[in-house]
Amino acid sequence: TPESAERTAVPGVSTGLAVTGAGGDVLFVEASLAEKETGASGVTLTGQLGDVMKESAQIALSYLRSHGPQLGLPVAELAERGVHVHVPAGAVPKDGPSAGVTMTTALASLLSGRPVRADVAMTGEVSLTGRVLPIGGVKQKLLAAHRAGITTVLLPQRNEPDLDDVPESVLAALTVHLVADVREAVALALEPAGQAQRVAA
Amino acid sequence: TPESAERTAVPGVSTGLAVTGAGGDVLFVEASLAEKETGASGVTLTGQLGDVMKESAQIALSYLRSHGPQLGLPVAELAERGVHVHVPAGAVPKDGPSAGVTMTTALASLLSGRPVRADVAMTGEVSLTGRVLPIGGVKQKLLAAHRAGITTVLLPQRNEPDLDDVPESVLAALTVHLVADVREAVALALEPAGQAQRVAA
Amino acid sequence: TPESAERTAVPGVSTGLAVTGAGGDVLFVEASLAEKETGASGVTLTGQLGDVMKESAQIALSYLRSHGPQLGLPVAELAERGVHVHVPAGAVPKDGPSAGVTMTTALASLLSGRPVRADVAMTGEVSLTGRVLPIGGVKQKLLAAHRAGITTVLLPQRNEPDLDDVPESVLAALTVHLVADVREAVALALEPAGQAQRVAA
Amino acid sequence: TPESAERTAVPGVSTGLAVTGAGGDVLFVEASLAEKETGASGVTLTGQLGDVMKESAQIALSYLRSHGPQLGLPVAELAERGVHVHVPAGAVPKDGPSAGVTMTTALASLLSGRPVRADVAMTGEVSLTGRVLPIGGVKQKLLAAHRAGITTVLLPQRNEPDLDDVPESVLAALTVHLVADVREAVALALEPAGQAQRVAA
Amino acid sequence: TPESAERTAVPGVSTGLAVTGAGGDVLFVEASLAEKETGASGVTLTGQLGDVMKESAQIALSYLRSHGPQLGLPVAELAERGVHVHVPAGAVPKDGPSAGVTMTTALASLLSGRPVRADVAMTGEVSLTGRVLPIGGVKQKLLAAHRAGITTVLLPQRNEPDLDDVPESVLAALTVHLVADVREAVALALEPAGQAQRVAA
Amino acid sequence: TPESAERTAVPGVSTGLAVTGAGGDVLFVEASLAEKETGASGVTLTGQLGDVMKESAQIALSYLRSHGPQLGLPVAELAERGVHVHVPAGAVPKDGPSAGVTMTTALASLLSGRPVRADVAMTGEVSLTGRVLPIGGVKQKLLAAHRAGITTVLLPQRNEPDLDDVPESVLAALTVHLVADVREAVALALEPAGQAQRVAA
Ligand SMILES: [Ca+2]
Ligand SMILES: [Ca+2]
Ligand SMILES: [Ca+2]
Ligand SMILES: [Ca+2]
Ligand SMILES: [Ca+2]
Ligand SMILES: [Ca+2]
Ligand SMILES: [Ca+2]
Ligand SMILES: [Ca+2]
Ligand SMILES: [Ca+2]
Ligand SMILES: [Ca+2]
Ligand SMILES: [Ca+2]
Ligand SMILES: [Ca+2]
Repeated sequence: TPESAERTAVPGVSTGLAVTGAGGDVLFVEASLAEKETGASGVTLTGQLGDVMKESAQIALSYLRSHGPQLGLPVAELAERGVHVHVPAGAVPKDGPSAGVTMTTALASLLSGRPVRADVAMTGEVSLTGRVLPIGGVKQKLLAAHRAGITTVLLPQRNEPDLDDVPESVLAALTVHLVADVREAVALALEPAGQAQRVAA
Repeated sequence: TPESAERTAVPGVSTGLAVTGAGGDVLFVEASLAEKETGASGVTLTGQLGDVMKESAQIALSYLRSHGPQLGLPVAELAERGVHVHVPAGAVPKDGPSAGVTMTTALASLLSGRPVRADVAMTGEVSLTGRVLPIGGVKQKLLAAHRAGITTVLLPQRNEPDLDDVPESVLAALTVHLVADVREAVALALEPAGQAQRVAA
Repeated sequence: TPESAERTAVPGVSTGLAVTGAGGDVLFVEASLAEKETGASGVTLTGQLGDVMKESAQIALSYLRSHGPQLGLPVAELAERGVHVHVPAGAVPKDGPSAGVTMTTALASLLSGRPVRADVAMTGEVSLTGRVLPIGGVKQKLLAAHRAGITTVLLPQRNEPDLDDVPESVLAALTVHLVADVREAVALALEPAGQAQRVAA
Repeated sequence: TPESAERTAVPGVSTGLAVTGAGGDVLFVEASLAEKETGASGVTLTGQLGDVMKESAQIALSYLRSHGPQLGLPVAELAERGVHVHVPAGAVPKDGPSAGVTMTTALASLLSGRPVRADVAMTGEVSLTGRVLPIGGVKQKLLAAHRAGITTVLLPQRNEPDLDDVPESVLAALTVHLVADVREAVALALEPAGQAQRVAA
Repeated sequence: TPESAERTAVPGVSTGLAVTGAGGDVLFVEASLAEKETGASGVTLTGQLGDVMKESAQIALSYLRSHGPQLGLPVAELAERGVHVHVPAGAVPKDGPSAGVTMTTALASLLSGRPVRADVAMTGEVSLTGRVLPIGGVKQKLLAAHRAGITTVLLPQRNEPDLDDVPESVLAALTVHLVADVREAVALALEPAGQAQRVAA
Repeated sequence: TPESAERTAVPGVSTGLAVTGAGGDVLFVEASLAEKETGASGVTLTGQLGDVMKESAQIALSYLRSHGPQLGLPVAELAERGVHVHVPAGAVPKDGPSAGVTMTTALASLLSGRPVRADVAMTGEVSLTGRVLPIGGVKQKLLAAHRAGITTVLLPQRNEPDLDDVPESVLAALTVHLVADVREAVALALEPAGQAQRVAA
């Protein structure tokens, strides 16, 4: 089983794809909400995130603060509980806008209490209205997803032409969903709602 | 149909014109308001905006905070809901005062619930009293608007002489409105109010 | 008619004089108050102001916060409405203490609802007690005022000797008031109170 | 007796392992809560901590704010009392993510009122969901633990292969627990709850 | 009459002595309190003050916040009205601790409503307990005071030996008070309380 | 009589020992609390303190906020009155952790209303749990204490070996107390509680 199975076993964690100096890699976005009784508030971002990536987290939060109710998410939780978004490993600097879909999905998972599917990884910039904008490194990211045992990848619609560069054998092993709106990504990535669930910690 | 049709389909998004290293380009300004229940407040600005462009957003907000009621806008919404202004793409640094009209229009669209017309793009600095001040790059901006399928452009009155430098064929394909006050720009850019509308998210 | 007629048509805008790389120039200081219902508070300063000029704005505000009642100004408005001071053009860096009189006058105009006279321009540093301190560039500033169609200039008393350097033809065309206290400048610059006026936006 | 016996005699202090310029070393993480009556609030981090290490402290706190109740910890204390995390010696700069387990354990000790066992030292990065991630310098850290009289070491599960590099004699003298979740570390490190205890200062 | 007569005509202004690149000079410290109805709060420091001089202002305020009642000052005013300390000229950078006595005196004058004597200038660092600590440039400062028409100078007790360096003619024209506690300086510098006075603006 | 007699005559001041470029020196730590009616709150640190020394002040405060009640100190005062810690002389940059004991003692003196003994000077880093950690420059510091007329010195227990380096004549003139916990230092340094005392300003 892929590492993503362990990591995404709880709501609030989703699997992203990144380009590093040495090709592509899988990364995890973790989100948590403080228990109300702790009095924590505000937003904390950790993982040595660069300013573009911090802005991605702010966009993901603002998207959910305005569109969350349409997605059936209990966004009032955000008013009363501090939010923390972390991207391990803690000492590795990370930047760029392409974790937008991953961050939005992690937060939607956290709020819905529905875990992210262990076989799914994703990449894509998100705009404030939820549009999924194209990113770079499609080939390296899909190779990395394949190596990590991922079987489903969510990619921006506008990156469709870049699939030409991905080896046939890799494409054959992956189900690639092209998404234009982050709402599609969230719908594809979250486990179906099971028995009564509540907002996860 | 131009990309602007998709982007401006919802209230809160307007189409601007920018000068880049490689000529002119279309850019989109997105604005959103958090749902009250999320407890969000304040102003968030993202899109790797330089300090002049961040000041443009502050001016657009202050203009609406003092003149909004005269425009029939429900500015009390600003008291109770966090505002976010974003300019995709998230990784591209942007600066300069010429997105003032575009930002003011996006916020007026958001507050009014009336989308911005898909065929309109605009450029112009805005002063705190709503005056539209001249900008640079008129030729490149109109060429870019034309390439992007835009048919109506809002330009500062004081940039009228710069139209001499724009090719006849481009001018022939565009309706150019010269505006001296941002209130004219808002009136020209927003779709007419239809059936009962409310403030968009 | 000079540009200042258009710019100062509404309360809250006053005409200043600055020294630039290319001689003197006219600048405008714009001030606005947010509608109470917007929930805005605090002070916003824009226009790429340097730290000395930002301090001038703070001094102008503090002067009015302590001396405003003596001038008959409804300073309680400052408690409940966010204040914004902007100096167009937005992309041009500006610094120095000599806009103190202009800023104090713009704010007094805003609070009183009385516009600044269109034919008046001014320059001078203001101390926290309202004293008008001398500034540089008198010759260039008066030449610029004259070019811009200004007919009345307010100058610090202690700059009187610098008038020797101004061409006779320019001095003949200008009425120069030498002021020692910013209260004199405000009295000279504001239009007389007309029919019932209220605090402008 | 090792120094750790003196240092960890009170709840809120745990023994970590660090790599320094001169091999490995033992370090202590101290945590305290202000008395409610002092009105202190918020989080204070001292010890010349680098930004990665400060983020580790934020992660430890957020982990406890969301998972603390599952561990039986009275996290409501965090709402009403300022938290301070310090890593002596005060003049020595420290950085890196590997004190995450030590920080989480110190805070859990503080909240539970149960001291950390004097014979235990630990190292490991902690993710926001409590996963223990691998760290560097296993050999140096175990040598340092041994030198300091420590007999039990908590190590990330994923560092298991690095034990090959540690001298047999050192391994023979140490009990090494490989942990995958910080909850295991806390359970192993804290003294059993004795008679009625309350949150320590 | 010296300039200090005009400057110190109102409560809240006191005359200090500084060393500049070109010998000594007189400077003025201005303090003001916002009218309560303006809702202003906090402390504003302007005049291009360096960090040491900003700390001097904080010390002067803290001294009065704890010792003010012993001096008969209505320090509760500080709770409800924003304080501003300014040192003209606004564009000249200033630094150093020797304006401590001048700042404390300006604030005591403001709170008491008693103006500072026009014939008095002062210099000296102030500690948090009100001790007056020695400063540099005694000779230049006394020469500057003399040039400016000052007849009384307050100097730190511990600067007594430096009077040897001041020309006899200057010393003969000045009354020099050596002070060890800032309370002595305040008592010497303020005009006697006259008819009913209230806290000045 | 030593200078420390004058400086420590009031509660809230304690005498420390520092290493400077020119050997050792005596320094004073001053602490004050604002009168409640002034509305001041928070912590102010002045004296051109470096970041390590600022952290020492935060540690001293946190130590007292959690252990103060055990020392019989009225720590609730800290909730309602702004605290200021200053280290004269104001223009001299200072850094390092060795003023921790001095700062803790000054604050304990302030809260208890008991002055620090005039014949005592001290040095030592303090950890968050109150442990006294070793410092450098023992020889220079004891020589400076002796020169300044100090007769009792409080030193970290772990600096005991460094006494070997101090001249016999100096040691013979000094009573050196080796302390392991800051509570011992406070007990040794404060004058006995006399008649009814209250928290000093
Ligand atoms: Ca960057
Ligand atoms: Ca292709
Ligand atoms: Ca800039
Ligand atoms: Ca032309
Ligand atoms: Ca500057
Ligand atoms: Ca002359
Ligand atoms: Ca770093
Ligand atoms: Ca191995
Ligand atoms: Ca400095
Ligand atoms: Ca001498
Ligand atoms: Ca440092
Ligand atoms: Ca020895």
